[in-house]
Amino acid sequence: MTAGLSTAQLTEKHLSTLDQALDAIRTRVYWSPFPEHPKAYGPEGVPGSPSPADGQAAFEALRGKRFELDQPGTDGWAGGEVSPYGPELGIEYPHPDADVLLPAMRAAMPQWREAGPEARAAVCLEILARINARSHEFAHAVMHTSGQAFMMAFQAGGPHAQDRGLEAVAYAFAEQTRTPHSADWSKPQGKREPLELRKEFTPVPRGISLLIGCNTFPTWNGYPGLFASLATGNAVLVKPHPRAVLPLALTVRVAREVLRDAGFSPDLVALAAERQGEGIAKALAVRPEIRIVDYTGSTAFGDWLEANARQAQVFTEKAGVNTVVIDSTDDYKGLLSNLAFSLSLYSGQMCTTPQNLLIPRDGIGTDAGHKSYDEVVADLATAVSGLLSDDARANALLGAIVNGQVEERIGAAAQLGEVALASRSVTNPDFPDATVRTPVIVKLDGAKPDSEAAYLSECFGPVSFAVAVDSAADAVRLLRRTVREKGAMTVGAYTTSPEVERLVEEACLEECAQLSLNLTGGVYVNQTAAYSDFHGSGGNPAANAVLCDSAFVASRFRTVEVRRPA
Amino acid sequence: MTAGLSTAQLTEKHLSTLDQALDAIRTRVYWSPFPEHPKAYGPEGVPGSPSPADGQAAFEALRGKRFELDQPGTDGWAGGEVSPYGPELGIEYPHPDADVLLPAMRAAMPQWREAGPEARAAVCLEILARINARSHEFAHAVMHTSGQAFMMAFQAGGPHAQDRGLEAVAYAFAEQTRTPHSADWSKPQGKREPLELRKEFTPVPRGISLLIGCNTFPTWNGYPGLFASLATGNAVLVKPHPRAVLPLALTVRVAREVLRDAGFSPDLVALAAERQGEGIAKALAVRPEIRIVDYTGSTAFGDWLEANARQAQVFTEKAGVNTVVIDSTDDYKGLLSNLAFSLSLYSGQMCTTPQNLLIPRDGIGTDAGHKSYDEVVADLATAVSGLLSDDARANALLGAIVNGQVEERIGAAAQLGEVALASRSVTNPDFPDATVRTPVIVKLDGAKPDSEAAYLSECFGPVSFAVAVDSAADAVRLLRRTVREKGAMTVGAYTTSPEVERLVEEACLEECAQLSLNLTGGVYVNQTAAYSDFHGSGGNPAANAVLCDSAFVASRFRTVEVRRPA
Repeated sequence: MTAGLSTAQLTEKHLSTLDQALDAIRTRVYWSPFPEHPKAYGPEGVPGSPSPADGQAAFEALRGKRFELDQPGTDGWAGGEVSPYGPELGIEYPHPDADVLLPAMRAAMPQWREAGPEARAAVCLEILARINARSHEFAHAVMHTSGQAFMMAFQAGGPHAQDRGLEAVAYAFAEQTRTPHSADWSKPQGKREPLELRKEFTPVPRGISLLIGCNTFPTWNGYPGLFASLATGNAVLVKPHPRAVLPLALTVRVAREVLRDAGFSPDLVALAAERQGEGIAKALAVRPEIRIVDYTGSTAFGDWLEANARQAQVFTEKAGVNTVVIDSTDDYKGLLSNLAFSLSLYSGQMCTTPQNLLIPRDGIGTDAGHKSYDEVVADLATAVSGLLSDDARANALLGAIVNGQVEERIGAAAQLGEVALASRSVTNPDFPDATVRTPVIVKLDGAKPDSEAAYLSECFGPVSFAVAVDSAADAVRLLRRTVREKGAMTVGAYTTSPEVERLVEEACLEECAQLSLNLTGGVYVNQTAAYSDFHGSGGNPAANAVLCDSAFVASRFRTVEVRRPA
Repeated sequence: MTAGLSTAQLTEKHLSTLDQALDAIRTRVYWSPFPEHPKAYGPEGVPGSPSPADGQAAFEALRGKRFELDQPGTDGWAGGEVSPYGPELGIEYPHPDADVLLPAMRAAMPQWREAGPEARAAVCLEILARINARSHEFAHAVMHTSGQAFMMAFQAGGPHAQDRGLEAVAYAFAEQTRTPHSADWSKPQGKREPLELRKEFTPVPRGISLLIGCNTFPTWNGYPGLFASLATGNAVLVKPHPRAVLPLALTVRVAREVLRDAGFSPDLVALAAERQGEGIAKALAVRPEIRIVDYTGSTAFGDWLEANARQAQVFTEKAGVNTVVIDSTDDYKGLLSNLAFSLSLYSGQMCTTPQNLLIPRDGIGTDAGHKSYDEVVADLATAVSGLLSDDARANALLGAIVNGQVEERIGAAAQLGEVALASRSVTNPDFPDATVRTPVIVKLDGAKPDSEAAYLSECFGPVSFAVAVDSAADAVRLLRRTVREKGAMTVGAYTTSPEVERLVEEACLEECAQLSLNLTGGVYVNQTAAYSDFHGSGGNPAANAVLCDSAFVASRFRTVEVRRPA
């Protein structure tokens, strides 16, 4: 590690990247400073990045050991991660004594506040740059905690997560610098001398920010809150999901190294690993020192946080029920292949994976002629089967089932209606203990009240429902109800009818859901791009926040004004 | 009223004002489009403004009548305002049937959303311009509900409130237009064709916004939330304090007129007057249609709203305890006259009025020599007495006591310690029934635990405590504790010592309070200027929001993205 970097050096190093990120969030065009292809990393590629093999070796070297972090207030060790691919990681992490750790984190904050928005952004960008260089190591850590296949773990857990972190830094910087550092105020008083004041404005942090990580996307869902809070002057306590500690522990380690190198207290970022069944998040979230909480996970605990962590700003991403309205298409083949991919990617274990496919019971118009409801469902089942017919390809797309509950849901779903596509188990030759499952598609009748319980609940995992509806208008009614009552991270629609398109758009504008229309190529409804796409809307029950907009950062700091006679 | 104004006409009329407001919130220099002197209004002055006499006549014409508003869902009439100056207003307002009114308000929103940020800003500016022209009428309405003296009712209730409303419109416009209306996104794919999407971004409202008004500053504290919500596409239901309905009822009437003239549904803004003891705010605040709440008032109800109106974004300004640290000065006379004015203005019935004056028990250094604690307190008492010695001037500064509880507090305060300045009753020859009281100053010893209960509670009204402390450092310790535990809207300090100045600044930065240093001229700690000063910090218990920053507007709308293949 480079020691003794001045913040001026870091600012010079990263200012152009920050400026480009600021441009990107303003224009929403495609941009990223972090290459997404694994081959871009290594001695010939991204500066300072080890080879893929060395990255993997770095990951392997962490296994079966204590993960040392020199943070204050360690009262023991906690661990127990088991890869969804089978192996135990065997890593132990420091367990915090909050009564020691939190005061140390608070004590680190005044110097960080004084550094100002630009220096803080530069330090955050250095953290991201060092993480980026180690993307291969992070990819293995994400793969063996989330169960994502390697390529997805690399991209979503690496460069794309880093993009979301950088995006948050850019929003934080923009928001903190909207008010000038100082102003001279002069109010005319007619013939008398004007009233004159010198005013200084300082962005100040709220306190300690608590990041409660999730199992499936520890970095992608974690980085926005972590970097938004750090860039706005707060200290950040990182409480990973107990089954996905390593990617965030590595993040904390890198952050602490960079902070120390730049002359700040490393205690601005610390880890809170927990013992089995300890439920440490609940205790931490309501402590008075905690003034911001970022959370991704179940609706039950998200609602609990919103109700109980009242001393804090609480940003949550919870469960939702994602819908695709299938009305008509001029590219039936593209529709099928695009949807098949969306349903298969990471075995549907994304908060953005479509669940309810609403299809008129009279069928749909396509460029390949009219297709009945049964034909559409059968063709989709065939498309999914075809996509996953080769086991190697299936493994590369599906990854592993993250936990037993998801597997149980696959079994239970098959009891809910007629199974249009049965889930099959795939063997992973590299990891024979991994549970790898293809999606199940179940037919349901939207007119039957007893189907409602199924399609109006989130069934997280590779389960989707082909719901027969009376018409496109009926689909839009059900879409509205689903978003309003259950929330949605994504909505998709296929239609060639301007009228249906208008109805779906209007529903999404009124119910506040992000809409992807007629995706038939290489962009999928479950993927969003930092700097351009919003992840979630913050306006329906699936999430109270967006990755990333100014509301996501603006309340993480306050502005203190000091005024005095000029 | 001008009928049938197009939004294009309104935009052209007001765009330059909006641009200037956007510049002002960026530079924080002095600016206002609304003249603050009463004489600026009339046929020779602000276009369209009636003469002061006609303004007063317009107010008088409202008295003793029903205040008709053609809003849907009126199930009766409610009223009963009695001027703090004595007279009953005798006005009855429509009482809402929320089950009829709220759906009508919701139905008005899609067209308002479709109009877009610029048209909404223009309509808001037209509302403010028409209110501005009627500032004399509003001044009498504010005077006879809040008890403010005429000049203050005119300025704070008129142009300054309009400034705070315009400031909120500017913030709302800036925030909604940070994301472009559309973007073309093209992601390179190596040798393959790039992925290309057309993306559209639309700011969408949250729902119906509920404004819960206060008794003392119905317009000044009400306009920021009202206009921030309206400008971001929401409908706004205005629930005034039952003793200060008229200023907001007039506001609602003007808003409805402008909305109708501009081709929108007037139901985007409606009034919810309540019957005596009805507590309608509690029922409205938790309705699912209400997605935003703005509130100014007691800590108890503010806390209740934050805990219970969980379906809404809740912005509160509650009680606080404001402190002035008096360490030393190079303008003793200026210090005394400035503080005397701050304590006297509107009989201390401002959320920003200083309460605790922390003075070292060994006295302070001044340009007029060393002054003992007793001398400082006695000189301040003399300065207040001198300022208010003339009854006409006293009436013009003090206004009337807004309600019986304030009067009771004056009496009770005198029992808490040695009275350095007794409150006296002043007769108002124009309004013999008005209760007009000068400030009471009570000496307390900060080292005596039994004084704590007094100076660590908000004693709203013309009561201040001269608290003897051990030293400047002791004063800063008490300041920190007060802000952290009780909150503060304002902090003042007088010092010639760079070290004490640094300590006070550091305390305000860490405890998140707005600081005015060494005010000795015509700017007072209890006054803030829109576009430049922040009112409250949002970071201590006195308020969870600031008038006005981007956090105050950013979460009032969401951005919905629709993306489709390019």
